Amino acid sequence: MSKKLRIGLIGAGRIGRVHAENIRFSVPEAEVVAVADLYNDKIKDWALSLGIKNVFSDSSKIMEDEDIDAVLICSSTDTHSSLIVEAARAGKHIFCEKPIDFDLTKIREALKEVEKAGVKLQVGFQRRFDPSFRKAYELIGQGKIGDIHLIKITSRDPQPPPLDYIKVSGGLFLDMTIHDFDMARYLSRSEVTEVYALGGVLVDEAIGEAGDIDTAIVTLKFANGALGVIDNSRRSVYGYDQRVEVFGSQGCIMVGNDKLTHTVLSTAEGFLSDRLQHFFMERYRQAYIEEIKAFVESILQDKEPPVTGIDGLEPVLIGLAAKRSLVEGRPVPIERV
Amino acid sequence: MSKKLRIGLIGAGRIGRVHAENIRFSVPEAEVVAVADLYNDKIKDWALSLGIKNVFSDSSKIMEDEDIDAVLICSSTDTHSSLIVEAARAGKHIFCEKPIDFDLTKIREALKEVEKAGVKLQVGFQRRFDPSFRKAYELIGQGKIGDIHLIKITSRDPQPPPLDYIKVSGGLFLDMTIHDFDMARYLSRSEVTEVYALGGVLVDEAIGEAGDIDTAIVTLKFANGALGVIDNSRRSVYGYDQRVEVFGSQGCIMVGNDKLTHTVLSTAEGFLSDRLQHFFMERYRQAYIEEIKAFVESILQDKEPPVTGIDGLEPVLIGLAAKRSLVEGRPVPIERV
Amino acid sequence: MSKKLRIGLIGAGRIGRVHAENIRFSVPEAEVVAVADLYNDKIKDWALSLGIKNVFSDSSKIMEDEDIDAVLICSSTDTHSSLIVEAARAGKHIFCEKPIDFDLTKIREALKEVEKAGVKLQVGFQRRFDPSFRKAYELIGQGKIGDIHLIKITSRDPQPPPLDYIKVSGGLFLDMTIHDFDMARYLSRSEVTEVYALGGVLVDEAIGEAGDIDTAIVTLKFANGALGVIDNSRRSVYGYDQRVEVFGSQGCIMVGNDKLTHTVLSTAEGFLSDRLQHFFMERYRQAYIEEIKAFVESILQDKEPPVTGIDGLEPVLIGLAAKRSLVEGRPVPIERV
Amino acid sequence: MSKKLRIGLIGAGRIGRVHAENIRFSVPEAEVVAVADLYNDKIKDWALSLGIKNVFSDSSKIMEDEDIDAVLICSSTDTHSSLIVEAARAGKHIFCEKPIDFDLTKIREALKEVEKAGVKLQVGFQRRFDPSFRKAYELIGQGKIGDIHLIKITSRDPQPPPLDYIKVSGGLFLDMTIHDFDMARYLSRSEVTEVYALGGVLVDEAIGEAGDIDTAIVTLKFANGALGVIDNSRRSVYGYDQRVEVFGSQGCIMVGNDKLTHTVLSTAEGFLSDRLQHFFMERYRQAYIEEIKAFVESILQDKEPPVTGIDGLEPVLIGLAAKRSLVEGRPVPIERV
Repeated sequence: MSKKLRIGLIGAGRIGRVHAENIRFSVPEAEVVAVADLYNDKIKDWALSLGIKNVFSDSSKIMEDEDIDAVLICSSTDTHSSLIVEAARAGKHIFCEKPIDFDLTKIREALKEVEKAGVKLQVGFQRRFDPSFRKAYELIGQGKIGDIHLIKITSRDPQPPPLDYIKVSGGLFLDMTIHDFDMARYLSRSEVTEVYALGGVLVDEAIGEAGDIDTAIVTLKFANGALGVIDNSRRSVYGYDQRVEVFGSQGCIMVGNDKLTHTVLSTAEGFLSDRLQHFFMERYRQAYIEEIKAFVESILQDKEPPVTGIDGLEPVLIGLAAKRSLVEGRPVPIERV
Repeated sequence: MSKKLRIGLIGAGRIGRVHAENIRFSVPEAEVVAVADLYNDKIKDWALSLGIKNVFSDSSKIMEDEDIDAVLICSSTDTHSSLIVEAARAGKHIFCEKPIDFDLTKIREALKEVEKAGVKLQVGFQRRFDPSFRKAYELIGQGKIGDIHLIKITSRDPQPPPLDYIKVSGGLFLDMTIHDFDMARYLSRSEVTEVYALGGVLVDEAIGEAGDIDTAIVTLKFANGALGVIDNSRRSVYGYDQRVEVFGSQGCIMVGNDKLTHTVLSTAEGFLSDRLQHFFMERYRQAYIEEIKAFVESILQDKEPPVTGIDGLEPVLIGLAAKRSLVEGRPVPIERV
Repeated sequence: MSKKLRIGLIGAGRIGRVHAENIRFSVPEAEVVAVADLYNDKIKDWALSLGIKNVFSDSSKIMEDEDIDAVLICSSTDTHSSLIVEAARAGKHIFCEKPIDFDLTKIREALKEVEKAGVKLQVGFQRRFDPSFRKAYELIGQGKIGDIHLIKITSRDPQPPPLDYIKVSGGLFLDMTIHDFDMARYLSRSEVTEVYALGGVLVDEAIGEAGDIDTAIVTLKFANGALGVIDNSRRSVYGYDQRVEVFGSQGCIMVGNDKLTHTVLSTAEGFLSDRLQHFFMERYRQAYIEEIKAFVESILQDKEPPVTGIDGLEPVLIGLAAKRSLVEGRPVPIERV
Repeated sequence: MSKKLRIGLIGAGRIGRVHAENIRFSVPEAEVVAVADLYNDKIKDWALSLGIKNVFSDSSKIMEDEDIDAVLICSSTDTHSSLIVEAARAGKHIFCEKPIDFDLTKIREALKEVEKAGVKLQVGFQRRFDPSFRKAYELIGQGKIGDIHLIKITSRDPQPPPLDYIKVSGGLFLDMTIHDFDMARYLSRSEVTEVYALGGVLVDEAIGEAGDIDTAIVTLKFANGALGVIDNSRRSVYGYDQRVEVFGSQGCIMVGNDKLTHTVLSTAEGFLSDRLQHFFMERYRQAYIEEIKAFVESILQDKEPPVTGIDGLEPVLIGLAAKRSLVEGRPVPIERV
């Protein structure tokens, strides 16, 4: 393929910009040629600095452009499923940020359109592309720890998002834990069959008043017999805490955190090492690059994307079951229609 | 008190011997003066080597000896509650290995007799005396991590006990997890109000055939609003894995494992550090010494033992609820009569 | 300053390209507008991809261009001092890769011209800009470890450079240890007064035949009374090993390595963590960005560059003394004319 | 051998008592049957508590007792060599604390008497028996790191000994570094051929006024071509710092420190782990037990002790050369007569 893959970006908020910059600086096989954003005035300078000449307010301009091969859907969640449908019908490959939707019917309809159109769809679970988690995945695949018995995931944000965001976030399980549900599926190579959720409002009462929780423990049963548990908090004062442990018949794999520096101060108090990295933009910097590289590669080499539509659907199924479990105070099986 | 505290040991199996040796070599204020064991012939040489002259087959000899101040009950679990009753009636202070009993009625009766007699009773949850866990407890007490939000306990044995033992063990939750229930109460300084248990037979099918499980995840709700989770396995190939994490509003405390050596080999493969210590006798060597020192001190200074009868009762309550949760597949509240 | 700082790159080998790319992607206040390289044909595509339109074979084109504010001298070491002189006379600010020269007279002449011209000169000791080493420097400056007693630096390359390079490298002390001499001065905030060097050919006999060594221990005396030691090897099979330890009256600061991933595999063999990063391009990726940002900032804000001409001279003085020490088998004082 | 090895202890100061207690509690094949100490009145209670009935002020009582198989010489250094001679002539096996003497002639005479008498002599370099250092030794012996290129030893005491002790200690190199010289020989399996010493008085001026130094860096050349360096300080505020690094053609072995607990507090400040163990009595607790077991075993099984007379002589040779190097400011070859 002599010419570059031509990409249109829909939604130039924080994460959309990261993808565009990563393509510009790290993915020579592709280029972002157009961007559509409701606030198109505000992004013109940014787009120019990346050499993106076409800046629209309306995403239909991108859908209609026959020279565009693929779209990145980075707009608000409520627009995802309809944009997927539009893009599929326009014959464009699709990268869509998570979650596809909170409504299972809409997700399933979108996936059907993708299938009908025969385009690629990759969902934005970037953690799978983190070098440490990927290495864990590979070691498991090589049988280094034998059969999987237990999976433990710790995921704690440095601080809660704004209340306005929380109100439209879909709740902790669909906004935050959804990444952990994906990680659980990724590392176990199995599907979740049942979920039980404990939750509390321990960080900030305003979160509770907004109808959400800020602290949770969620247990999982997997189809392969393994057991799992995830713990979440919206506020970790020592930084963004992202760990995984997979325990099996022949060993255990632990993925730990990286610290801001590798400098340790030892005094009469003990040994003080640095805080963790601040948040996901720093922790998953490399993962975001690898993710978009993989999307471009799946198109150029015509192979299945590493995170599929089903991978987009399943965590929403689990998240909805977790919400129900929390309300009803009992374990809830995952029902797949 | 010019003379030493005189102690009678009942049951000279592995743990009974450890206590006697620790008293001999590390607790100058006390001495074991008599030992009763059903297999008294087999322990005579051992007793002699420690300078214990009186070796009986029948524990009543110890109960009747007016010169004996305290007893260590280290015989099989089914004898604990009646021996506590006997010792209390004989006016002797009591150290009893965990669990007191599997039957709540018997435990409560035993505790009543102890209260009536006004003797000390300490239950053998030695992990509270481990320097690392104790330091965690102290840091929490000093408010270093603020309010507690999450408690996570990992407890994995290097290999399962013999099947014959498993059959009379009371099951994973009352044999193994019971220590973790105690740790959860110790570190949270709160009571467990509800428990939910997931379990599997993943290590050895024979354990399942014996009616038990070998792998578990147990979630906990605490009266103070905190959430907890424990994970257990009967077989960890890399050694005895004992970790705790307490996460709070101002930070997190993690207690990690010690390794056999502090030697690291770095080659083209990476950095290889040593296995964990083998099992509880090595991991809690210091804890066993501190535990028995604390028991002797509580008698000599006439203060409350650091692990009380209630501390012996509560983990059994939680363990029985966990068993029920596993059978019924639902969270079970802890009921206190 | 509304317009960007305009930079000319001289020498577009590996390190020159890194600087140009870092400016393009991470230093919005500056732009590389021209590049001169003997093999200018080979770099045209690369230059174009960065938007650099002027590609010359002759650096004088850059010197003569009045629109160019600053030059990056990244050509071979034997050209550094004369290019500094030319650039200074042309009134351009100068960033020069280390070492300035192996000849003290040439260095001093170059520094004189820089002083006369009143331009900025920064020398390329990028390790000072590594976040971990910089944090060590700051903690020391804050008095966290009191007075400095001992400085220990470990610096081991993953593999030796080609023999052709070794022959013109100036030898281990001026090619490799020179960075450690700079680090020693940086962290001690003091000057080296005496050096003693032990060396061996333990990695590859061909290095010895080329007149160099591949393994060394160098001790240092500092003007402030502290003692120091550096150890070097040209081949570390577990990756690029870069550590520092500064021990003082009130504590110790240790800077450790980063590993490729944070994934640990624990099995019956023990705990296996990942190799170190491969080499300086990976290890000092962030440092190279920070270094060039600091150079641009020193010009734009008219302040002293963080690595001065004297900082370029001193490590050469120490390196030459170390060479002499090795030959003569005795400690050699640093003589400053 | 049906009866126990009968041991006489000469000198019941701190280290003598440790040996006696270790034999009592951990070496069932041996017993201390007599102790001689100038201050015999002060040790009677202690001796009694261990079941040692014979307490003398004069060591000749032990030498003359035909029932005693071996002696432990734990008296002051100035008595070591003559006691070795006496014990050898009396046909007793000998364990002698380090150093044998500061006078090479006396050491050589003592070793000759030992050889003539055909008794065992083990010198008290206990670090060889530390499980971590021993594992390093074994991994090296298994060829895990290939040929040895560099050995680095860090040895820092928590605080200086009393000035009165320093005055008779033989100086830093013979009192403190002597253990590191032994470790260097042990791990390299080679002899030191040249030493160069840097020293300073940075901890306490009174140490300098007493004619000693408190901070040092010592470089070593080994017969096998390897290079080495030792750094010492008399005061490390974060605890007793004992580390070793052996770097070779195929990898590197690092022996690190153990901390007081495995508890880590993470807050907004970072991750705070515990101080190191206090001093050698805690750090080498297990090593002291293994050392004396090995001595007993070498006698009972009639094999060469793991630390021989030559192992006692060589570190003194190196220490004396280091002293000379410091005074003369030049590297000093080790001369063996």
